[in-house]
Amino acid sequence: MCEANVYWLNDDGSEELLLEDVDKVKPTENGIVLESIFSERKVVKASIKEMALVSHKILLERLAD
Amino acid sequence: MCEANVYWLNDDGSEELLLEDVDKVKPTENGIVLESIFSERKVVKASIKEMALVSHKILLERLAD
Repeated sequence: MCEANVYWLNDDGSEELLLEDVDKVKPTENGIVLESIFSERKVVKASIKEMALVSHKILLERLAD
Repeated sequence: MCEANVYWLNDDGSEELLLEDVDKVKPTENGIVLESIFSERKVVKASIKEMALVSHKILLERLAD
């Protein structure tokens, strides 16, 4: 399976796990919708910083409301 | 390997292959930088419409310059 783990990139450069085993990533007006292979869903105000699919890693940056 | 294929979503709803076997996806000021596992690189003026990682598929929409 080729799901990815999604992390927040914090201001200090550290990374913080947000959601594991993400299949779907969909930017919407309300934020980025993340959906895991276990149908766990989160909607976050964020922008995509970088995705490294072979490493199963997606980095997000927080957006102000 | 968990690379994905990147497609344009055309106005008529059809999909058009843009780059295969993409590992890295990085939004930048100049556009979205795509890099394949074969180090082929493309930079496109686009927004991410949807990513389905388990299906190895990323859909992009064209942005006007």
